Amino acid sequence: MDNNRTLMELQKDVDTYISQFKEGYFPPMELLARLTEELGELSREVQHKYGTKKKKATEVEKELADEMGDFFFVLICMANAEGIDLQQSLQNVLYKYNTRDKDRWTKKED
Amino acid sequence: MDNNRTLMELQKDVDTYISQFKEGYFPPMELLARLTEELGELSREVQHKYGTKKKKATEVEKELADEMGDFFFVLICMANAEGIDLQQSLQNVLYKYNTRDKDRWTKKED
Amino acid sequence: MDNNRTLMELQKDVDTYISQFKEGYFPPMELLARLTEELGELSREVQHKYGTKKKKATEVEKELADEMGDFFFVLICMANAEGIDLQQSLQNVLYKYNTRDKDRWTKKED
Amino acid sequence: MDNNRTLMELQKDVDTYISQFKEGYFPPMELLARLTEELGELSREVQHKYGTKKKKATEVEKELADEMGDFFFVLICMANAEGIDLQQSLQNVLYKYNTRDKDRWTKKED
Repeated sequence: MDNNRTLMELQKDVDTYISQFKEGYFPPMELLARLTEELGELSREVQHKYGTKKKKATEVEKELADEMGDFFFVLICMANAEGIDLQQSLQNVLYKYNTRDKDRWTKKED
Repeated sequence: MDNNRTLMELQKDVDTYISQFKEGYFPPMELLARLTEELGELSREVQHKYGTKKKKATEVEKELADEMGDFFFVLICMANAEGIDLQQSLQNVLYKYNTRDKDRWTKKED
Repeated sequence: MDNNRTLMELQKDVDTYISQFKEGYFPPMELLARLTEELGELSREVQHKYGTKKKKATEVEKELADEMGDFFFVLICMANAEGIDLQQSLQNVLYKYNTRDKDRWTKKED
Repeated sequence: MDNNRTLMELQKDVDTYISQFKEGYFPPMELLARLTEELGELSREVQHKYGTKKKKATEVEKELADEMGDFFFVLICMANAEGIDLQQSLQNVLYKYNTRDKDRWTKKED
């Protein structure tokens, strides 16, 4: 498998997958509901790994990565359905953090 | 700005940003709490765009993309803190959908 | 079963249940993580009932009520752990809506 | 203010409030989206109180109770819109915990 796909290519991979079906992307409120559902499952795995009632480590690592994949898939679906370029959105965030919020945290060299 | 960064490079960009601060990544339960907070803000924008009480369109487009960026940033933080390769996780999801779930939806050519 | 318990009695019922265990209430971040998990399950049932891929109606009614119960239980746990009187909090909300936000929606007699 | 309202009366209070408006209850997916938004705000307050970046204590107590009220209000809206008796749902949960899950945690007298 190609380990160096750009985020734009990955958004296109998801679109290629979805585009083969008549149903296409879900309506926006339903994509949001799915994102909420996936966050719930991610939350369960985080609790299993770090919470009061832990599961065994090997079992958990796999599931956390899988849940994060499911979650990321739905996020990309929503971005695609809305015509949003996730790389651009992320770069805007990093730019904002590096300018507006640049003194919010403690620089290591301080 | 480079429009063709790989997801791995983007995960590294976030790590470079976080690594300059003494605080580093938040503990896992707190990253999850931040993800919940960001999903709430994304939800507010989805309601503004598609819900009963709509806002004007131009205002919304920008905010939805911005909220998605904030949300994606925290997701990458969690992936980095857990040592998870998001591209690999996504490709596993797509593989699962193309095998186990391949008849779940209606193919267009049917 | 008593159909007329006050909310305060119900908060006490949950406290009586939790208090019999050594573990007691979970830490706050973990209660929040559980709330996120339960909202995810509630979201799944809402999608089953109203979404693109529906389940049969009878099956769904029961599960939606059950998921709402699970969710409400965790909310009461969090309120109890924080020493919050939910009835008071709700009445504050209603008061706020009836004063600050009283013209936000369309009165029927208008 | 009456400190001893039953949960059923509180559900009715919310219904009385909502029933005066033409809009009535939001559609189910939108109520869910609002619940997600309110959980996000609750999450922010929990982080302010218990997270890495704390706020001053007095300020937080109030807001946590308020956010919990907002959240509880939307939960009751959803229960009402679905015709769900929250007290019954909660009592089913407690019954389930006292039977099926009764040995899941450590009893104090053990």
